[in-house]
Amino acid sequence: MPKLAYLGPEGTFCEAALRILAPDSERLPCANVTAALDAARSGEADAAVVPLENSVEGAITVTLDELAWGDPLLITAELLLPVEFSLLVRPGTEMPHIKRVFTHPAAITQCRNFLARELPDAVVVAAPSTAAAAQEVSVPGSPYDAAIGPAIAGEHYGLVELASRMGDRDDTVTRFVRVSRPGPLPEPTGADRTSLVAFLRDDHPGALLEMLSEFAGRGVNLTRIESRPTGEGIGRYFFHFDAEGHVGEARVGEALSGLRRLSDDVRFLGSYPRADRLSPQLKRGTADPDFAEAASWLTRIRTGQV
Amino acid sequence: MPKLAYLGPEGTFCEAALRILAPDSERLPCANVTAALDAARSGEADAAVVPLENSVEGAITVTLDELAWGDPLLITAELLLPVEFSLLVRPGTEMPHIKRVFTHPAAITQCRNFLARELPDAVVVAAPSTAAAAQEVSVPGSPYDAAIGPAIAGEHYGLVELASRMGDRDDTVTRFVRVSRPGPLPEPTGADRTSLVAFLRDDHPGALLEMLSEFAGRGVNLTRIESRPTGEGIGRYFFHFDAEGHVGEARVGEALSGLRRLSDDVRFLGSYPRADRLSPQLKRGTADPDFAEAASWLTRIRTGQV
Amino acid sequence: MPKLAYLGPEGTFCEAALRILAPDSERLPCANVTAALDAARSGEADAAVVPLENSVEGAITVTLDELAWGDPLLITAELLLPVEFSLLVRPGTEMPHIKRVFTHPAAITQCRNFLARELPDAVVVAAPSTAAAAQEVSVPGSPYDAAIGPAIAGEHYGLVELASRMGDRDDTVTRFVRVSRPGPLPEPTGADRTSLVAFLRDDHPGALLEMLSEFAGRGVNLTRIESRPTGEGIGRYFFHFDAEGHVGEARVGEALSGLRRLSDDVRFLGSYPRADRLSPQLKRGTADPDFAEAASWLTRIRTGQV
Amino acid sequence: MPKLAYLGPEGTFCEAALRILAPDSERLPCANVTAALDAARSGEADAAVVPLENSVEGAITVTLDELAWGDPLLITAELLLPVEFSLLVRPGTEMPHIKRVFTHPAAITQCRNFLARELPDAVVVAAPSTAAAAQEVSVPGSPYDAAIGPAIAGEHYGLVELASRMGDRDDTVTRFVRVSRPGPLPEPTGADRTSLVAFLRDDHPGALLEMLSEFAGRGVNLTRIESRPTGEGIGRYFFHFDAEGHVGEARVGEALSGLRRLSDDVRFLGSYPRADRLSPQLKRGTADPDFAEAASWLTRIRTGQV
Repeated sequence: MPKLAYLGPEGTFCEAALRILAPDSERLPCANVTAALDAARSGEADAAVVPLENSVEGAITVTLDELAWGDPLLITAELLLPVEFSLLVRPGTEMPHIKRVFTHPAAITQCRNFLARELPDAVVVAAPSTAAAAQEVSVPGSPYDAAIGPAIAGEHYGLVELASRMGDRDDTVTRFVRVSRPGPLPEPTGADRTSLVAFLRDDHPGALLEMLSEFAGRGVNLTRIESRPTGEGIGRYFFHFDAEGHVGEARVGEALSGLRRLSDDVRFLGSYPRADRLSPQLKRGTADPDFAEAASWLTRIRTGQV
Repeated sequence: MPKLAYLGPEGTFCEAALRILAPDSERLPCANVTAALDAARSGEADAAVVPLENSVEGAITVTLDELAWGDPLLITAELLLPVEFSLLVRPGTEMPHIKRVFTHPAAITQCRNFLARELPDAVVVAAPSTAAAAQEVSVPGSPYDAAIGPAIAGEHYGLVELASRMGDRDDTVTRFVRVSRPGPLPEPTGADRTSLVAFLRDDHPGALLEMLSEFAGRGVNLTRIESRPTGEGIGRYFFHFDAEGHVGEARVGEALSGLRRLSDDVRFLGSYPRADRLSPQLKRGTADPDFAEAASWLTRIRTGQV
Repeated sequence: MPKLAYLGPEGTFCEAALRILAPDSERLPCANVTAALDAARSGEADAAVVPLENSVEGAITVTLDELAWGDPLLITAELLLPVEFSLLVRPGTEMPHIKRVFTHPAAITQCRNFLARELPDAVVVAAPSTAAAAQEVSVPGSPYDAAIGPAIAGEHYGLVELASRMGDRDDTVTRFVRVSRPGPLPEPTGADRTSLVAFLRDDHPGALLEMLSEFAGRGVNLTRIESRPTGEGIGRYFFHFDAEGHVGEARVGEALSGLRRLSDDVRFLGSYPRADRLSPQLKRGTADPDFAEAASWLTRIRTGQV
Repeated sequence: MPKLAYLGPEGTFCEAALRILAPDSERLPCANVTAALDAARSGEADAAVVPLENSVEGAITVTLDELAWGDPLLITAELLLPVEFSLLVRPGTEMPHIKRVFTHPAAITQCRNFLARELPDAVVVAAPSTAAAAQEVSVPGSPYDAAIGPAIAGEHYGLVELASRMGDRDDTVTRFVRVSRPGPLPEPTGADRTSLVAFLRDDHPGALLEMLSEFAGRGVNLTRIESRPTGEGIGRYFFHFDAEGHVGEARVGEALSGLRRLSDDVRFLGSYPRADRLSPQLKRGTADPDFAEAASWLTRIRTGQV
């Protein structure tokens, strides 16, 4: 049974994601994203499941930066998980008792309206994760009266659910990815995604435009683009891209090669099936047989067979 | 004396920024970025100073989202402030006593090496701001033994500086902006920046490329691009751009008009002097007289005077 | 009754075009395209009708160069005229008698198959025009036995039509234009064409790409592009463009202004109704109201009204 | 000794070009460009030398169309030959006697000023070539009194040179090419040119822009672009391109493959040393080693070695 590290403690949304992505696996909760990824890197775990992107808050920057700068890992699967928050308290706590709430900053943002309406005077303190918040609240004598987190965190830690579906939006989704040490890629399925990181060669005007043109010129759509600072001062960025398709496909492979040539560095983060199973609509002339025909034509003309 | 709201409490980097941007002003500390901006919106303050971008962590997303979605405000000035962290404790506390550290998550990230090396066993808890952390630590009986924050936070709250320059990097900088209610723009200085938010009309492939082309085609360099989720599900973004130049200049004005035509919406966030005083190098044919000549030529040919 | 110069002598396709474009006019046949255009320039004629493009042979280079380099003229109308060639002889001449054929080089090319099949041994000599050929052949004692030209040339000069529809293709068309001294443009009709000449600023790589982007970025399709040597050595070109739309429309006007800014010179050759009455399909955001909305938005934001 | 066909008769500029391109060869004069190319196609000659482009008149369209539509041939060398015209007459003819001048239309255009100034009343008749004109004039009893052509044509046909350097410009140059049946290409020299013909897939807006982007994106400069009608009606074109570099180079090969994928058809016309020996300045990331590195990187990441 494979062992998978995840962003713990027990009871996180990440655990819920892991249970769907890898139902028959041993679970290794880790204190933070870095620890989960390091467990996969070191071989302590066979893979790790971590959040990559949230439909409201955007990129999980610690995951992006770990994938870009740490020892290489490959994304091998993704999952879109609806996010629903519950107000979790020790048995006996009532709404009027709640003076201090503990939860992850993302939950604070997403439950802004509920908090303003129902708990306008409560102090809300940032926790490292929603599950950690639940765990902390479960300790008798905790300085916190309530946690905000997934319902299963309440189950895990023996808390009572005072309110559910607290989020301002019904459609909040988090994207989780499974990452492994470098190895064979998942087979192309026809509905795949490719993730990568590119570092601009020079900060010359139009450099980003050039990078995007490598994709657009071959009909490869980008589904996500994130700029992240390189840490070398304001105005120096690198980019995370998610593109439609699998690196094994010619149009994606050639686009990545092009990007490689005009960038300082490109890190490939994996090609894997899309959670939404959407197949791209190919632009004429960009299917694999088109590339194969053009390549054999090129071989012919280079030897003067015209 | 103008009154300026800022991200409080007293002792934040933001206060330090405000003291440089508006030395002769009354200061109104606010609990968070939203509150500071709301003070400017409501007229309670004449303007607000908030962080927009950090050279290590990237965009301050709450500021980006407030500027994009809240009642309109205009950026009228910017400042780049070096960020230096100190370890702040109550008098009498020594390194070995420190079990629980309280600070803002950005400080946790930026002081990772120091913490791993000097305080490997300490629990580090996320605070809403570094100054709030210092304030909390200053309270006798606080569950926290140390705060990480700016030296002036220590002075404000009577704490002792056990270590300074704790950051992993020496060159960390935060970009602060002064924002005001809509009104006349700062005059062009020849070294200006223009900020805006654009919402893609359709998520069609190449839409971002088209937007970037509006700038590139007129020789307007972008100095920052941030994608942010619209909150309508994974894969739907809007974009923050910083561009060189002032909207009063023809090339910038025409680029913004073009962006407006092909976007669902564009929100203008202001044109203001660059903190680094760098003047852009203009591409041939894109200076104001070039646009004026072309416009008068167009007027002539439209009446058949060729 | 207006007087129109045309490429004579009497009996040319050009006369046929003129009779359609300006039925009620006095006709002034001229020896060549330059003479016809000069008649319009000098005021000797009110306008001129000349060929611009042939569907088989391509651009009529003398017309292109005259419009580009001579005193400015404006195209005010266009006509597409099917080209049908007849073999024209003096009464009494039979096929076996034909040893020397006289016609314009374009007719030689377009009747290649007929000549190879029916008159394989005839010498074919280049004439300045098909009508001039007919005129020459009509002179008793002419060294030529037959002319190739329009049927009406035969009527004009008393020749007999030995063969008709001699062209290799049935669908050959010549595009004729009416040009006048600069003056008010024809009103926009919704199905217009705009002609112009652009001289590249520098021969830098990508200069042509930049010029095309000015059109493409505003959804203005080009219907013709011709490169012509500047006469300053191999590898130096200028360009003739035909674009969809009328310069009075915002998207066309802005594209032309952009072209003007990045070119050494642009000469506007006119906006006039398309002969084929095809209306362009506008790209979203490029109709006149879109430009007007964006312009008034720009005016507002420049004064800080956001 | 190889046998080379050329555009005859003896005494043409084309013969002069051939003598430079292939000094030790048997020369086969042909009646026109098509005949010269057919001689090479059939094996009657080993190669052919024909004009491709003139610095004043532009493309030699019959050559362009023959290379595009006839049986495939490859360009294997090019030459730039200065064009100098002389006025050639039978011994005894003086300027005042000249009533009818015979020459090629290109010479008529290029000697416009001389003719207007010195022979304002002469009739100028189009000949198939300047040498044919000289030959015709050399026949006693010819209806023509003078030919305009190269000095060597006068020598060939026993004519007297009444005037020399008659051209309006001193710097007129014609580009001649040597073409052969398909076979091994000339080796890359570092200063090469590649010629090709591309047929647009659809006439969709921006199709030409897409084609140019295949070159521009890989830093391959175009040195010539000619649009030619396909013969399927006004507004349908195909394109002749000359590009810097040799198809054996990676950036050129990939650009051609890309063009191939997005065109209806591409015909390769050869890679050969440039007459002007200019080496292109390579854009960063587009040299052969850059492509090789990117290709081997792609191979690695496709097997998960990151």
